[in-house]
Amino acid sequence: MPKVNSYQDISQIDRESKKDFIDRHSPFIHVADSAKAGEVLAVNVKMGNEYVHPDELDHYIQSIKLFNGESLLAEASFLPGTLGNKAGHAEVVFNIVPLKDLSLVAISYCTKHGLWQSDPQVVKVSE
Amino acid sequence: MPKVNSYQDISQIDRESKKDFIDRHSPFIHVADSAKAGEVLAVNVKMGNEYVHPDELDHYIQSIKLFNGESLLAEASFLPGTLGNKAGHAEVVFNIVPLKDLSLVAISYCTKHGLWQSDPQVVKVSE
Amino acid sequence: MPKVNSYQDISQIDRESKKDFIDRHSPFIHVADSAKAGEVLAVNVKMGNEYVHPDELDHYIQSIKLFNGESLLAEASFLPGTLGNKAGHAEVVFNIVPLKDLSLVAISYCTKHGLWQSDPQVVKVSE
Amino acid sequence: MPKVNSYQDISQIDRESKKDFIDRHSPFIHVADSAKAGEVLAVNVKMGNEYVHPDELDHYIQSIKLFNGESLLAEASFLPGTLGNKAGHAEVVFNIVPLKDLSLVAISYCTKHGLWQSDPQVVKVSE
Repeated sequence: MPKVNSYQDISQIDRESKKDFIDRHSPFIHVADSAKAGEVLAVNVKMGNEYVHPDELDHYIQSIKLFNGESLLAEASFLPGTLGNKAGHAEVVFNIVPLKDLSLVAISYCTKHGLWQSDPQVVKVSE
Repeated sequence: MPKVNSYQDISQIDRESKKDFIDRHSPFIHVADSAKAGEVLAVNVKMGNEYVHPDELDHYIQSIKLFNGESLLAEASFLPGTLGNKAGHAEVVFNIVPLKDLSLVAISYCTKHGLWQSDPQVVKVSE
Repeated sequence: MPKVNSYQDISQIDRESKKDFIDRHSPFIHVADSAKAGEVLAVNVKMGNEYVHPDELDHYIQSIKLFNGESLLAEASFLPGTLGNKAGHAEVVFNIVPLKDLSLVAISYCTKHGLWQSDPQVVKVSE
Repeated sequence: MPKVNSYQDISQIDRESKKDFIDRHSPFIHVADSAKAGEVLAVNVKMGNEYVHPDELDHYIQSIKLFNGESLLAEASFLPGTLGNKAGHAEVVFNIVPLKDLSLVAISYCTKHGLWQSDPQVVKVSE
């Protein structure tokens, strides 16, 4: 299996370059903690919290996938230049309609540094 | 070439079922008219304006692509069930960073009714 | 709509650079003329017949889609470097199982020169 | 992380239904053991060796990705019906041009049973 890198809490990491490397490659899921069954829920997935990632021809974020448990919900793919060839945060908002509790995980692919997964994000879904 | 259906102004159409068919299959681009070069611009692409599209196993919106002129910027793909198997508006927000004027077109694919393109949406981009 | 370029018979074209440009950007479908319903049919889609296309970071074949009429059957997507960063023929073989006559069209996307479609390829499918 | 299921040697498994489940969900890479640098190498990825997988609206093989180590080389995605809605072997042939030794892994996604990876397949590449 290609290695899937996991987010590590960068406040526990000393080396600045390592903080930067981990943060900019990690997808972060921004979503409400709770939702209503059958109603639209916006799920924002953004690469990096504090640090930006290059958008270069040989080094860019090529895709962001959103899973609920083992199930793929949606995927965004990008070409180099989407962020104007400047460092930035690749980002996508998917609108989904949950029917029951969600356990969301995002997985991104960097063309130089491979696969990265977010922490799981639980959404309580009530009737 | 598979036929690419184009949006038609539904206010000019009499038959309710035809209005519904065209509207729910058409991607609509919601974006500011003008933007600053090098800054993040949110581009929302939403299927249907007034009418909703099914999200069924054999009939759903499988992808939305965003072009600038001839160039593909980004693509979202969905699996059936993303909208809770209810009729709704498939929707995605891409964040892009323009460097010059944009002429955006979205193309969606419905698993039963094929390819549909939006009207072009021009964004003036200034320094 | 982004322009979709169509194959033109290059034997009718004089200018060498234009022959090369058209040929290397066109998907060609290689498939049997007839098939048995319910049996596996290999469909080869190859970019270019006589001329090769670059595989460079800023100029490569990013995808090949296979349609039957208006229906998308399958898609291959590539990253730069799949062809060793040398000029070559991007190529994919999809195995499909037809139930009735096919009218296949392939559409490719070059990151510099946009969308290109093949001539339609008809396959007679008998019981 | 969504669980990524790995191939297990089914000759070591007693229960017929488990053999079937594992085999039909596993991608198998069929490729030469050795190749010449800079020359085209066909890589066949086929789902299942002895057992077939459904091709139903709610249960089909949606994608097959090919990695070399951590690097994504190419991806095929399918819609339900590619195999005529009969059980069969989803299959794709990618032509790649290696420059040095390869360690290929394929990862597939079943819309009901999630992610599955193949055993790694090493290809010695000589000048």
